[in-house]
Amino acid sequence: MSTTTATDSNTTPLEFSSVFADLTPHVEALNACLRDQVAQFEPEIREMADYCIDTSGKRIRPALVFLSGWQDEAVNPELVRVAAVIELVHLATLVHDDIMDGADIRRGRESATRSFGPEAAVLLGDALFAHALHLAAQFPTTLVCSAVAESTRRVCAGEIIQTLRRGTTTVSREDYQRVIDLKTAELFRVSCYLGSHLAEFSEDYVTAVTVFGRQLGIAYQIYDDLADFFGQESKIGKTLGTDLGSGKLTLPLMELIEASPENERASILAEITGDRAPQPELRVTQMRELGIFGRVESALEQELFIAESALDQHVDLPPVPRLLSLISILRSQVASLRPNIKGKLPVGGT
Amino acid sequence: MSTTTATDSNTTPLEFSSVFADLTPHVEALNACLRDQVAQFEPEIREMADYCIDTSGKRIRPALVFLSGWQDEAVNPELVRVAAVIELVHLATLVHDDIMDGADIRRGRESATRSFGPEAAVLLGDALFAHALHLAAQFPTTLVCSAVAESTRRVCAGEIIQTLRRGTTTVSREDYQRVIDLKTAELFRVSCYLGSHLAEFSEDYVTAVTVFGRQLGIAYQIYDDLADFFGQESKIGKTLGTDLGSGKLTLPLMELIEASPENERASILAEITGDRAPQPELRVTQMRELGIFGRVESALEQELFIAESALDQHVDLPPVPRLLSLISILRSQVASLRPNIKGKLPVGGT
Repeated sequence: MSTTTATDSNTTPLEFSSVFADLTPHVEALNACLRDQVAQFEPEIREMADYCIDTSGKRIRPALVFLSGWQDEAVNPELVRVAAVIELVHLATLVHDDIMDGADIRRGRESATRSFGPEAAVLLGDALFAHALHLAAQFPTTLVCSAVAESTRRVCAGEIIQTLRRGTTTVSREDYQRVIDLKTAELFRVSCYLGSHLAEFSEDYVTAVTVFGRQLGIAYQIYDDLADFFGQESKIGKTLGTDLGSGKLTLPLMELIEASPENERASILAEITGDRAPQPELRVTQMRELGIFGRVESALEQELFIAESALDQHVDLPPVPRLLSLISILRSQVASLRPNIKGKLPVGGT
Repeated sequence: MSTTTATDSNTTPLEFSSVFADLTPHVEALNACLRDQVAQFEPEIREMADYCIDTSGKRIRPALVFLSGWQDEAVNPELVRVAAVIELVHLATLVHDDIMDGADIRRGRESATRSFGPEAAVLLGDALFAHALHLAAQFPTTLVCSAVAESTRRVCAGEIIQTLRRGTTTVSREDYQRVIDLKTAELFRVSCYLGSHLAEFSEDYVTAVTVFGRQLGIAYQIYDDLADFFGQESKIGKTLGTDLGSGKLTLPLMELIEASPENERASILAEITGDRAPQPELRVTQMRELGIFGRVESALEQELFIAESALDQHVDLPPVPRLLSLISILRSQVASLRPNIKGKLPVGGT
């Protein structure tokens, strides 16, 4: 699978979805499985659930399941089922996230909370969670149920900690790392674990790919936090600049604060605590001037380095070249955000 | 176990908790198990989760687990574990319910949504759900996980349907029955199913007690809806009169509408749709004048009759006398709400 390098600024970067070239039959089987699951819901909520499982999503976690457990082209029904479980959990967290964020847009259209109201959205998320676990319980042993339930709890814990820290300015880098480890890396990790385990790979490889998944998840969240400032709304499919507005102290903001003079620092902190109106456009301009993008990119690179290294001993296994291509794709996506490539201010107010 | 009869108006009615006389060691084991589970949460959310598992709750569902599977006095650790699973699911639904209802009081103190904010409460409920399923996955087979996940989804479906119907006046009795079957009776049902099944009773009895649990749950919800109009806030431990205010068309209101003259009907409907300010005190007075209490009580009695009948063939089994005492207790609780016993208007504005 060819990938665009970060320096190849004339080429359109590969989307995450390009990794699906070989995965088309797997993803079709996944989508059919998800539709089939939603058909088991009570009629009143079927339409709402259908709305959430729409096929425009990137399906990154299912891709990790399929690729970690890749033996050959054949579609393994166990992997399809476990991919559906994890995607349902992920979709449930998105529904609840959007309530937290008051987000109106998700994947380029109205969020569930906007369409159905936050009250129904709380319950719809619950129903998706519960159904995911019900599907997980259909495996012959309790392994999938146990792993997914534990991961789900950790994802929620990450989100809670993030919510509790909103508007506070004492978040350390360790706190940030821990939150993204819980809220994002956990499902990446469990996807790789279950994909490789159910495909009956060696314990050594299962351990290695689980580390890979976790690191890729951390890197992906850093990319996502970068995209919140440097992305294009039409491409990311969600409202931009929400992190500053909602008092979330992410890595780009931490770097900006550190690099800013004393008086400017106070005013950024006041935007985070909600004592001043947020000025995302000004902050992006400052990030450009102070080279914040490069700093964040290098933090992200460190995570990708650990991810790559984890697979060093297993390069001959069929999944590994495919998994490594995910790293290249993420790199090219990060590169596509780089301010000097864009040459224009990408943040639009919403 | 002696119970107060409905006609014995001079005696304080037995509380549901009195059934715990024999269950003290079981409930202590349950509380220890719940505390132990919460200790496994991330430090930041442990305190919040602790707040939710407080021991003032009625623990009706755990009691159903223990009583349905009653062999002798011995505490069965499997039943303790499954009771903890179901109670955690129930507590999670309470946390999310209170968000829906905007309720400030739960069990006589601040609700979780009031204490921690609705955003953290959404996620706290999720974490409790997820942890329940994680604990369920620790049984040797997937049976518990599967049953609990399916029940949870049905509970959520019931809540969603109820939420979608809020403020609408076209809810039929069948709709009402279906919603309470999903949102309340489902966990009563699965408590009886899992308690009896894990205690290795005969399939015949398991089926019978599952029917019993469902019917008791329906009757219990009708009681709860009656208490929303006829209860005493200090006793029920939550804000009264919320159903009318939140546009929930419950059985007492349905009966009132049916029994009211045309012009009054329109004004009650306008209170449900939110076109007029709700007047719960006036509506309770009208309910008294029109004998609505008796009508609802007789609907409730029909459900209890089916519950009792389900156990007819199994009266010699150790659980059955204990389960039947639950029916007597519920009857005495209903009787304690009866307006002619109280002799004063019990609804206070909040």
